[in-house]
Amino acid sequence: MRATFTPESVDAGSGARAGRVATARGSFATPCFMPVGTRGAVPHLSSADLEALGVEVVLANTYHLMLRPGPETVAELGGIHGFADWSGHVLTDSGGYQIFSLRPEVDDEGARFASVYDGAACLLTPERAVEVQALIGADIAMALDVCPDSGAEPAVIGRAVDRTADWARRGRRAFLAHPDAAGRQCQFGIVQGGVDERLRASSAERTVEIGFDGYAVGGLSVGEERPEMLAALDACVPLLPADRPRYMMGLGDPAGIVESVARGVDMFDCVLPARLARHGTVLADGGRFNLRRAENAGSDEPLDPGFPQSPAARWSRGYLRHLLAVGEPTAARILTLHNLAWLLRFMARLRSAITAGRFEQERAAVHQVWSQPPGGAART
Amino acid sequence: MRATFTPESVDAGSGARAGRVATARGSFATPCFMPVGTRGAVPHLSSADLEALGVEVVLANTYHLMLRPGPETVAELGGIHGFADWSGHVLTDSGGYQIFSLRPEVDDEGARFASVYDGAACLLTPERAVEVQALIGADIAMALDVCPDSGAEPAVIGRAVDRTADWARRGRRAFLAHPDAAGRQCQFGIVQGGVDERLRASSAERTVEIGFDGYAVGGLSVGEERPEMLAALDACVPLLPADRPRYMMGLGDPAGIVESVARGVDMFDCVLPARLARHGTVLADGGRFNLRRAENAGSDEPLDPGFPQSPAARWSRGYLRHLLAVGEPTAARILTLHNLAWLLRFMARLRSAITAGRFEQERAAVHQVWSQPPGGAART
Repeated sequence: MRATFTPESVDAGSGARAGRVATARGSFATPCFMPVGTRGAVPHLSSADLEALGVEVVLANTYHLMLRPGPETVAELGGIHGFADWSGHVLTDSGGYQIFSLRPEVDDEGARFASVYDGAACLLTPERAVEVQALIGADIAMALDVCPDSGAEPAVIGRAVDRTADWARRGRRAFLAHPDAAGRQCQFGIVQGGVDERLRASSAERTVEIGFDGYAVGGLSVGEERPEMLAALDACVPLLPADRPRYMMGLGDPAGIVESVARGVDMFDCVLPARLARHGTVLADGGRFNLRRAENAGSDEPLDPGFPQSPAARWSRGYLRHLLAVGEPTAARILTLHNLAWLLRFMARLRSAITAGRFEQERAAVHQVWSQPPGGAART
Repeated sequence: MRATFTPESVDAGSGARAGRVATARGSFATPCFMPVGTRGAVPHLSSADLEALGVEVVLANTYHLMLRPGPETVAELGGIHGFADWSGHVLTDSGGYQIFSLRPEVDDEGARFASVYDGAACLLTPERAVEVQALIGADIAMALDVCPDSGAEPAVIGRAVDRTADWARRGRRAFLAHPDAAGRQCQFGIVQGGVDERLRASSAERTVEIGFDGYAVGGLSVGEERPEMLAALDACVPLLPADRPRYMMGLGDPAGIVESVARGVDMFDCVLPARLARHGTVLADGGRFNLRRAENAGSDEPLDPGFPQSPAARWSRGYLRHLLAVGEPTAARILTLHNLAWLLRFMARLRSAITAGRFEQERAAVHQVWSQPPGGAART
């Protein structure tokens, strides 16, 4: 099953596009933000909460689910949709990003690592990544890529791009030959190359040549400066086919999202809004702020007076700060709901702005609150 | 404002009664179970969740709220109802139970203890307990009592009963003189006396003589044998006026509740159903079970097949066990919702049984699942 991107509007100046991605499950509106349900749930939330938030796509982590409860158990319990009772879209990463953070032994075959749960020796290959994701049953599966450290030498990044291309070829072949995958899932390839523009372009060309249902940009938003990230995007996104969805992995800050959208990216995921919530940081129209600050203790204001539709709107900053201060998990839940609702509304506003032909005004307004001038280093 | 109890049905055999308790806020159906929102929220839940569960009364802890955020802050933010945005009933305990677990210095004036948060020296007197609860703004306030250890000597329990009576007199006087309390709140006195039937009767008589809006039985369900608890209840409940609500403090197991209801008790609170949930123990029509057990790992069954209206009914045991095993807080939330919904339905069934004249059959059915034969030591 190929994923297709159908544009509804494309901003003439920038190339920002609003439209729909279609899969075997149905379709969803883009640009979109995908909350991260690492172990099969977004922390503190259920599928009922995601439905109420209007989430269309959720991410689940192959690495975590393959270790616990195991892909066979997920498959037995109905795949990820039956398991979590979620009828929206699910995208699973390949597991590569988490595994490479564990400094695995890598050879041509795959990546060897020890389970964080019991130390058991594990091997992830491009073929096994396809198999595991077919068992999990995501709507969108990712090819296994090689994720070098953000500060790696050019030669290391070059070899990672080569191996990513080799693994992409093997992963694509395995996917197309898999009886449960090709008919029901679509598969995205991943462009690597660090912040080296030449390597980014080469990686994009080689990934497109293999031919995937969609394309992701990986290995960015990992600590590099914002202008470096944007230059790397500029070097590869124009080489990706216009009729396929484009996914920027692991980016979740408003300024970074609006700049990526301006470059034609459609899909985003990040743990940031939920993680910030658990630490008491609130996304609001006036910028982010830390609810733990003493000034909020006696405040009768809602978290964001500009967002009366927030699922947190009925409670005061004073009440929520108190719950946070005494460690009540209700606080993390309500702030998670708020931050996700805020970011989903942010994406809806970007879509509206593109459709209404006022994307550049929206982009400027986003930067006024969330960053230095466009192109400068963003506040993260 | 006096709290009144209006019976709708009284079981001729046992004295179990179904009816309504009326306060300045409105009224609620009894027998009822009150979830415990220790620090201003039931762990993992919000007031929106309590509304969805159909909760009519929630408990908040004076001791915790007086230390954090402080009663003045709660008052500034609209009292407990405005603070938590909850328009149902709130009952606050006096703080005595928590303070006595800290082994305070007690004299005629009150109880001195150190704050768990910063070690600050605190003094709670019968008058201050009234003041703090008036600031918190509960619908039902409790008089400050003396809670001796469950294994205390008879002489210690006797002195606790004497001091409880003295403090009740002072607390009642302070309540009636308080401009914000007497008009808006009602105040319950507390019967003490351990498992000594003579002291229980004496404490009940002296508390009733002072004259409260309702009466609670404290200092039970703290480790004594079930027959001792029931004998202590038998010694005091018949001495409490029939037109006032009766509240058994800290009891939450089905067998204990049904036996207390059989003795004419109307109101119950307990942290147990929520605490059990956080540890993976599920209340179900067939009895309680631990979801962590390996047999649940691959189970596609809901938590309680006999309770399809449970807020957890859409997820499988296998999924919820997985979330619990990997420490996702979503599990504690869903199990908390389930256990509270189950216990609220249990109370509704007791009310229906009393009204329909089949309380004794219901009582027997409860014991078949939840305990040894009526009167015997219950499984807890």
